[in-house]
Amino acid sequence: MYNYADDSLSLHTDLYQINMLKTYWEKGIDNRNAVFEVYFRENPFNNGYAIFAGLERVIQYIQSFRFTETDLAYLRELDIYSEEFLDYLKHFKFTASIRSMVEGELCFANEPLIQVEGPLGQCQLVETAILNIVNYQTLIATKASRMRQVVGKDDKLSEFGSRRAQEMDAAIWGTRAAYIGGFDSTSNVRAGKLFGIPVSGTHAHSLVQAYRDEYQAFKAYAETHKDVVFLVDTYDTLRSGVPNAIRVAKEMGDKINFIGVRIDSGDMAYQSKRIREQLDEAGFTEAHIIASNDLDELTILNLIMQGAKIDDWGVGTKIITAFDQASLGGVYKLVSIENSKGEMVPTMKISSNASKMSTPGVKQVWRITRNRDGKSEGDYVALSDERPDLQDSLFMFHPTHTYINKTVTDYTAKPILVDIFKDGELVYDKPDLKTIKAYTATVIQDLWDEYKRILNPEQYPVDLSQRLYDEKMASIKSIRDKIQNDIDVNENNHF
Amino acid sequence: MYNYADDSLSLHTDLYQINMLKTYWEKGIDNRNAVFEVYFRENPFNNGYAIFAGLERVIQYIQSFRFTETDLAYLRELDIYSEEFLDYLKHFKFTASIRSMVEGELCFANEPLIQVEGPLGQCQLVETAILNIVNYQTLIATKASRMRQVVGKDDKLSEFGSRRAQEMDAAIWGTRAAYIGGFDSTSNVRAGKLFGIPVSGTHAHSLVQAYRDEYQAFKAYAETHKDVVFLVDTYDTLRSGVPNAIRVAKEMGDKINFIGVRIDSGDMAYQSKRIREQLDEAGFTEAHIIASNDLDELTILNLIMQGAKIDDWGVGTKIITAFDQASLGGVYKLVSIENSKGEMVPTMKISSNASKMSTPGVKQVWRITRNRDGKSEGDYVALSDERPDLQDSLFMFHPTHTYINKTVTDYTAKPILVDIFKDGELVYDKPDLKTIKAYTATVIQDLWDEYKRILNPEQYPVDLSQRLYDEKMASIKSIRDKIQNDIDVNENNHF
Repeated sequence: MYNYADDSLSLHTDLYQINMLKTYWEKGIDNRNAVFEVYFRENPFNNGYAIFAGLERVIQYIQSFRFTETDLAYLRELDIYSEEFLDYLKHFKFTASIRSMVEGELCFANEPLIQVEGPLGQCQLVETAILNIVNYQTLIATKASRMRQVVGKDDKLSEFGSRRAQEMDAAIWGTRAAYIGGFDSTSNVRAGKLFGIPVSGTHAHSLVQAYRDEYQAFKAYAETHKDVVFLVDTYDTLRSGVPNAIRVAKEMGDKINFIGVRIDSGDMAYQSKRIREQLDEAGFTEAHIIASNDLDELTILNLIMQGAKIDDWGVGTKIITAFDQASLGGVYKLVSIENSKGEMVPTMKISSNASKMSTPGVKQVWRITRNRDGKSEGDYVALSDERPDLQDSLFMFHPTHTYINKTVTDYTAKPILVDIFKDGELVYDKPDLKTIKAYTATVIQDLWDEYKRILNPEQYPVDLSQRLYDEKMASIKSIRDKIQNDIDVNENNHF
Repeated sequence: MYNYADDSLSLHTDLYQINMLKTYWEKGIDNRNAVFEVYFRENPFNNGYAIFAGLERVIQYIQSFRFTETDLAYLRELDIYSEEFLDYLKHFKFTASIRSMVEGELCFANEPLIQVEGPLGQCQLVETAILNIVNYQTLIATKASRMRQVVGKDDKLSEFGSRRAQEMDAAIWGTRAAYIGGFDSTSNVRAGKLFGIPVSGTHAHSLVQAYRDEYQAFKAYAETHKDVVFLVDTYDTLRSGVPNAIRVAKEMGDKINFIGVRIDSGDMAYQSKRIREQLDEAGFTEAHIIASNDLDELTILNLIMQGAKIDDWGVGTKIITAFDQASLGGVYKLVSIENSKGEMVPTMKISSNASKMSTPGVKQVWRITRNRDGKSEGDYVALSDERPDLQDSLFMFHPTHTYINKTVTDYTAKPILVDIFKDGELVYDKPDLKTIKAYTATVIQDLWDEYKRILNPEQYPVDLSQRLYDEKMASIKSIRDKIQNDIDVNENNHF
């Protein structure tokens, strides 16, 4: 690997983006105004909602977007780009606008999370990195939220997954997303440094092995730390680990803050109950029992159902990789493009698979809540010039099964996409991470419990406005007519 | 997020590593000699083998290991470390030795991939990052190799997964691992720049949408590029996409290199056969059909079985995240530690779960091949001072089911762990990436086909030497005796 002092993320894109940019530029359409939207087609984990995350990293990426000397030198080596094109890239500046959900926002399938509007070529180029960032972080924030739903609001959730993360960026950005979604701390010290996430962790089995004596190891640890959790399953949890922990805790008395014990193997339902008895009998009724070992929301739920006496949870692999669904399939689709007459026209991709059909037009997402109790009524996706917040009543209907509909009155409509960049300038005042996390906790509270259960949740309505629906139907018809016409032409020109 | 000019990866570790270091240092045992080994307990994907990757990144990490000013400032803020300890960290240098498999090497469950030997505190601190790197890259190289097994040696495999990768490091290091394991190219331009991997890609659906006319879009692309692949499924693959591609290819003639067409949706078995007919009929018998769309080794295998006329494969999500198993459970275990008398003693972790028991002692892995045809006989894990290469015959037996055994003669025993760092200095001459990739292709060839099939492969033997086996049994007995003694003590001291 070469180490470049000026390495940038501008080449962190698919080659085809640069190749399309070349076409747009040579054909003189790179500056046509375009709007792309990011959305996903299905909530991850069959969950009833998702938690949007990744904006911080997107902002970083956009702000530092420029092709460096070594980037250009590499592209030159590929021998597919002219000097003129490379010169164009050299002076390339991101001057587009970005609207986005804020981090920690509730989001749902088939509504725009991010909207990028500006010169076609620029919008095209940033697709890959934006999806790379948002797909992963939104996935992990959502997984974290599922785990938070299961443990309730009081239990501590600690992220321990760095060693199993998919490389280093995932370890740190993943734990940040997990913190937003409901975790309390991370074991990754660098994530603590970079993001201000509380860090946690005490010792591993290797400490016990290094001393070759559990009591000596616990004693040494306690003599060199104030806050102490003992890992008690190196040899024999109930007969050796916990008794040694209690012995040292008693010997050290007030000199340490004996937080509790951690178990990392074995039958955790059974063990935790016996450990609770041992700790209580020894007078350590406040000491916590912390469990880790391939936990996920289902295992945790089952342990709780079995009456396990576990106070806090350490989660690794299953949070940092999302494991049972390792990727969110977010896409970035062109929804509106300037034509040769300077008019903006909606555009969409038709597919034989109905779920893969995009919705054309520039949109806003309105979150509808009823004024009576602040509870959610659904999302209303409308064209950007519509103002459902100024109406007295709102007709909401399912975008496919249109017979499922309702008319809402006495509601509040809140626009969810906010301005982040305007003409390349950051106009968004970023909240700090603790504020983002607190915001998530609040918006989750306003969601009906039926959307929050981890198994077979009720489907949250994401409806289209009548105008958006009508425009979509008109677009489909117009594209199908045009395709049929092209096909007729091709069939006449039969090769 | 704070941007630190001197950000380093030294804090990319679990907090407990630093806390254990504090104990070791205050208790004066941080410089005791220790040996840790990295291994995994099960081959990923139930595959018959794995491909080791990640060494390049481990070397980078080790070479730049130092605590920077802002690292130390952050640790100070945590308010759990003394100024003396922070000063110790400030002068901390990695002076340990590392032996490792080379990148691209075949590896198997329950044998050391990496061995770190040196001062206990130093070896402890690098655990998290080493596992983070090796677990991911080995997983992806192995997944790539499975896909290569399925497509055979001639089809092109292109990695297209950046947008679905788990953040940015995964996109670039993952595609490097995929290249080692058998992929031919990446779409990620930065990975091309950093590692010299061939880059590939032409255009997306958005090009067609931007032109709002498939023919116009193809024509524009062809007029601005030499090598051309048309994506033909934006509207109607067989009736519009392929005919438009053929029309443009004919019109452009020799002005372009018409590589072929790509399909990204629909029934690919059926479509590819019809497309093949259309292309052949038009005289483009050499044009390739490239398929992408959530492919993995099973889908590819099924397409091949159906006689799909697909020449090249674009794989995204399922290679870059490994998807069906998003993590390799590699661990880092203390196997030998200096006691207070200065003697090295083997150590292990006992567990009620037999598979979680580690094997004590400092090891070498010997790959045994028979001289007759160079084919694999299995791996022989021995203590580091054993020399099976100097023996005339070798007794090989299963480490658990010892009745499965054989005596091998006329063999070659090749040591697999090689010196990378000696006392903190890099002593390994790194091969370039293409050499690594070629090495993998060679060693895979020497493996019996029965180990290479993707479903239910035969189990490759990873045997212990008699001495290692005997030492392991003796260690288990000695630890169990000691634990029983401790338990008796605790029961007499009943709280």
